[in-house]
Amino acid sequence: MAGLKLHGCIWSTATLRVVACLNEKGLECNEHKKEPFISLNPFGLVPAFEDGDLKLFESRAITKYIAHEYAEGGTKLIYDEGKGKKMAMVTVWMEAEAHQFDPLGLGTKTKLAKVLDVYEARLSQSKYLAGDEFTLADLHHMPNLHYLVTTPIKQLFESRHHFWAWCINIMARPSWLKVIEMQKKEFSADS
Amino acid sequence: MAGLKLHGCIWSTATLRVVACLNEKGLECNEHKKEPFISLNPFGLVPAFEDGDLKLFESRAITKYIAHEYAEGGTKLIYDEGKGKKMAMVTVWMEAEAHQFDPLGLGTKTKLAKVLDVYEARLSQSKYLAGDEFTLADLHHMPNLHYLVTTPIKQLFESRHHFWAWCINIMARPSWLKVIEMQKKEFSADS
Ligand SMILES: N[C@@H](CCC(=O)N[C@@H](CS)C(=O)NCC(=O)O)C(=O)O
Ligand SMILES: N[C@@H](CCC(=O)N[C@@H](CS)C(=O)NCC(=O)O)C(=O)O
Repeated sequence: MAGLKLHGCIWSTATLRVVACLNEKGLECNEHKKEPFISLNPFGLVPAFEDGDLKLFESRAITKYIAHEYAEGGTKLIYDEGKGKKMAMVTVWMEAEAHQFDPLGLGTKTKLAKVLDVYEARLSQSKYLAGDEFTLADLHHMPNLHYLVTTPIKQLFESRHHFWAWCINIMARPSWLKVIEMQKKEFSADS
Repeated sequence: MAGLKLHGCIWSTATLRVVACLNEKGLECNEHKKEPFISLNPFGLVPAFEDGDLKLFESRAITKYIAHEYAEGGTKLIYDEGKGKKMAMVTVWMEAEAHQFDPLGLGTKTKLAKVLDVYEARLSQSKYLAGDEFTLADLHHMPNLHYLVTTPIKQLFESRHHFWAWCINIMARPSWLKVIEMQKKEFSADS
């Protein structure tokens, strides 16, 4: 594990997506904040990630790699080979996060309400997005949820009962509480 | 195979991503254009896809499912289990497509040039985005490339030699030429 390095910023939602994933897997990681990471992420964004020789970027590519490569420890997060149809639902909701949910902060209120209605319908059928288990599909939403509940959008969340129960449930996971602890420490160190 | 159904529109880039993938795998698929697909894609967008009981939406989730589930026939497109590091590079460039390349049509020219420079650097190191083989990472770019070369953006493509060679190469694949044939037929049927 000595080879894992995360280059990022504790206030970046994309970085926190990876941190939450590492926490779910119980993996420790050296954090490198001040290095130039253009050599790691050619688009010049955070996060970037190293596992020995392998250099990765794009938060959701990093979490997928971690979930597959370190499949054994911690929370499962994905389904194995041979469970193609179950894994397909994880993939569908990971894509929904990236293309429908993630852009919500930027959208109009009508668009937002419509997207949330789809989530509400889905979460009235199953406890988690891809089925009965917590997977990468849920995890990918955590950083934006955390940010959106500090905005007036929170009201739209609360009025959708299944969505709100899911939100409260996943934000209470130890992996996420650990993220918040990290942010608090950083904040008091800064001030 | 009788169970495969694609709900989409031949002019939609997201639909064509799936059609190109089916073509690479040599899979035939019933096309259903006029059905109400809100029951299939809750976000009300095309494409949606059915494989027997399984209903999927989000073009990139559909292509990933097809590549994994029908791994045996046609072009490989992905790497098997045990090739975690090679597959990680496919994932990185699939994410780059979704988050850096796909939004290009909407961006400023400066942003566009920067993103294309990253592609140029990458494609000067390897023939395809994830390495020596054509994968889903390349395939996901095809519909937007096809559209962008009809715009003034084409000049920015042509001035980047490795990028342009890659673009010409992948657009000449039989799977894509078949898409263009489909569009031509549809166009003459419409007019
Ligand atoms: N799609 C990328 C998004 C990365 C991204 O936008 N990162 C932001 C922070 S959340 C960033 O690096 N912004 C520019 C900067 O901080 O210099 C991913 O998921 O990794
Ligand atoms: N992220 C989605 C995007 C789907 C999408 O935007 N589809 C467009 C056509 S390319 C659409 O359905 N637009 C609304 C409509 O045609 O009614 C995917 O990849 O499937």
